[in-house]
Amino acid sequence: MRATALHTDLYQLTMIAGYLAGGIENHRATFELFIRRLPPHRSFVIAAGLDTALDFIESLRFTEEDVRWIEAIPALRRASPAFFGYLRQFRFTGDVWAVAEGTPFFPYEPLIRVTAPLAEAQLLETALLAIVNFQTSIASKAARIVGASGGRPVMEFGARRAHGVEAALYAARASHVGGCDSTSFVEAGREFGIPLSGTMAHSWVLAAGSELEAFQSYVDNFGEHSVLLLDTYDTVAAANLVVAAGLRPPAVRLDSGDFLELSRQVRAIFDAAGLKSTRILISGDLDENRIRDLIAAGAPIDAFGVGTALTTSEDAPALGGVYKLVQLQEGKRVRDVMKRSTGKATWPGRKQVFRVIEEDKAACDVIALDDEAGHGRPLLEQVVSGGARVVPRQTLAAIRARARDLIAELPEPLRHLEAEASYPVLVSSRLDQLRGQTQV
Amino acid sequence: MRATALHTDLYQLTMIAGYLAGGIENHRATFELFIRRLPPHRSFVIAAGLDTALDFIESLRFTEEDVRWIEAIPALRRASPAFFGYLRQFRFTGDVWAVAEGTPFFPYEPLIRVTAPLAEAQLLETALLAIVNFQTSIASKAARIVGASGGRPVMEFGARRAHGVEAALYAARASHVGGCDSTSFVEAGREFGIPLSGTMAHSWVLAAGSELEAFQSYVDNFGEHSVLLLDTYDTVAAANLVVAAGLRPPAVRLDSGDFLELSRQVRAIFDAAGLKSTRILISGDLDENRIRDLIAAGAPIDAFGVGTALTTSEDAPALGGVYKLVQLQEGKRVRDVMKRSTGKATWPGRKQVFRVIEEDKAACDVIALDDEAGHGRPLLEQVVSGGARVVPRQTLAAIRARARDLIAELPEPLRHLEAEASYPVLVSSRLDQLRGQTQV
Repeated sequence: MRATALHTDLYQLTMIAGYLAGGIENHRATFELFIRRLPPHRSFVIAAGLDTALDFIESLRFTEEDVRWIEAIPALRRASPAFFGYLRQFRFTGDVWAVAEGTPFFPYEPLIRVTAPLAEAQLLETALLAIVNFQTSIASKAARIVGASGGRPVMEFGARRAHGVEAALYAARASHVGGCDSTSFVEAGREFGIPLSGTMAHSWVLAAGSELEAFQSYVDNFGEHSVLLLDTYDTVAAANLVVAAGLRPPAVRLDSGDFLELSRQVRAIFDAAGLKSTRILISGDLDENRIRDLIAAGAPIDAFGVGTALTTSEDAPALGGVYKLVQLQEGKRVRDVMKRSTGKATWPGRKQVFRVIEEDKAACDVIALDDEAGHGRPLLEQVVSGGARVVPRQTLAAIRARARDLIAELPEPLRHLEAEASYPVLVSSRLDQLRGQTQV
Repeated sequence: MRATALHTDLYQLTMIAGYLAGGIENHRATFELFIRRLPPHRSFVIAAGLDTALDFIESLRFTEEDVRWIEAIPALRRASPAFFGYLRQFRFTGDVWAVAEGTPFFPYEPLIRVTAPLAEAQLLETALLAIVNFQTSIASKAARIVGASGGRPVMEFGARRAHGVEAALYAARASHVGGCDSTSFVEAGREFGIPLSGTMAHSWVLAAGSELEAFQSYVDNFGEHSVLLLDTYDTVAAANLVVAAGLRPPAVRLDSGDFLELSRQVRAIFDAAGLKSTRILISGDLDENRIRDLIAAGAPIDAFGVGTALTTSEDAPALGGVYKLVQLQEGKRVRDVMKRSTGKATWPGRKQVFRVIEEDKAACDVIALDDEAGHGRPLLEQVVSGGARVVPRQTLAAIRARARDLIAELPEPLRHLEAEASYPVLVSSRLDQLRGQTQV
């Protein structure tokens, strides 16, 4: 399930045909991917999806079947044979710089910078944005949920509400980047090595002759992996049933009702019966706010299964990342460019982002031109040179650890669930001057 | 890009292992897929994704590599050899009944009903829900946007904000079901035959020597397919430039600013210059409410390009469809089952939905047992028998036409953008009795 050449918007193809007709397809272009504003309630977002995006960039080719199909598109029927020949031999030969996955970042900071022949850089746009916008949304939501959970494990359970099965897979990946401990989605375990977790479904209880039989046979079959689902009929009655039957499941799951009240009742029943090590998991319409409230109220809950709100980033399901041309080079002539559209203006020139660290904490970021130095720790590093990766593929565990460490490095108020604080992002004086000078 | 056997939640596999251990894997089970409530502002939702789901069901197999991988999952290490043998020979052999794609439906109405050996029906859950929840969300959102557009064409432009490239593909499909005219996503044109549309990007204008050059060369290259993007620097100045250069583009696109004011100014400039047939398209953060407001204000806009709000169903990005066991049959013994969980109770028994038509309008629906008749037009039809499709694959154009016709058949207030009216859904007295009788 990898993005392919036709996973693109039609206008990328028509523009490439036009660049070829105008003889500018090989002018060296730099595009930057960035967001214009933070989603609601967020004080930062977490970069994710880069590794997936690089797989796409490295493998990007048009098959003969693709090209034949493009030849039949009405808007392209008049395109020159040179255009179709170009597609047939296409491969990405450019350079890519990127912020490492798991890094918190802010509006107007380039997250990915592509320098390549104009037509090649243009073709990346649609899939690159779809991949990075999505995974960044989900990793950022996961970081909120994990932050609210105060160290209790968070399991990603949302595949059934994801935007299709591929979205389920990459939502699991991005959730792990953002700090979730495990996923229920089996393919994500295989593809990315994420620990799998699972409990039982209501159908197990309904299919058994009785609730007691359902519990007993599950424990017989799955021993230390048993998580008994208590809410099919009545949660408290089911907890009493577990105790009366002498079962000692490692964990139970509550999936409906008043979690504060029910978790207290179930805990009391289990504690009175000596089941002190039986953990209580909850699931069902959870998000970071409900989790925070339950913990603040002292609910005796040991772990959270989070689905819909996480897997769709339900309160902010789209990240508005854009990919904009910032510089063109023709021979020795370098031209920095920018849009001036109302509300959608851009910053010209090839840029770098520096994070200024003071006493082990992030103090501010500086967006500067890429040949500036000395502002702090540079965030963009080269990941592709001449079309090939130049950095080793990182494990998801390493990316997750980076996210954890770099979130901890941010000023504490940025981790509050409401966006009460904003992080200072400065622009270097040279970049500011360039913007002033950049003409149509 | 088809869902596979590992696109599932871990507990589906552990439960199958448990069903085998208990010898109940072949008890004949009926599961029903339904929603419990309408998303905010919606008075109905549009069934979509069935064809995609049937492709998954028919092709569902475990490869040897899949099985080897499952053998290493900790929770399944103790599973019997019979379980792994079962996976190796797995294919779906059951029956599926479904509401035709493009049909409006309501809470608690079974949209898909699966009757199959228990373990087979169980395995479908995760992917079936991910596919159908997502496409139904998007088709329903598209119907709102198309309804608000009052007959003006709507182009789906949202791939870059979709939840990955597969989501972009199926969002384009579902948007077309819901009434959109075209998509910018090339693969959706190839895979589903949806008409493609595209304009030009800001990078085209920025890359050219000047805005005038950009426009001129685009018209030279693309003739009657040219849509000139006016807002890179200043929309009104660009419209004047088009006129001064004597260009006669078939259409222009505005992508930022005050669309009401700008569309009026651009229209006036073009009309004064005799470009009466040049159409004005707009795009940029559009949704059904903004479109309705622009049309109500008399904005001279000919077509709408809608992205993020449509492709992610931004105001309601998840549909809470569930898949619940309603009946089990062991030999001649039939047992109807239901959950009684707080706020999540279900209706027992194998059901059918009837739509009562009065004077060519939908008057109400009746949820009844599947062997009842005479309530009206039955909505569920058999689509799979013994694991194989028994209905011909429908064209997307036919599905789109059905959606248009069946939305028109609904009471008019249901088509308002605010959920001001609710459609009557009744329960047959036999179903109501069965619920009363159904015990644990």
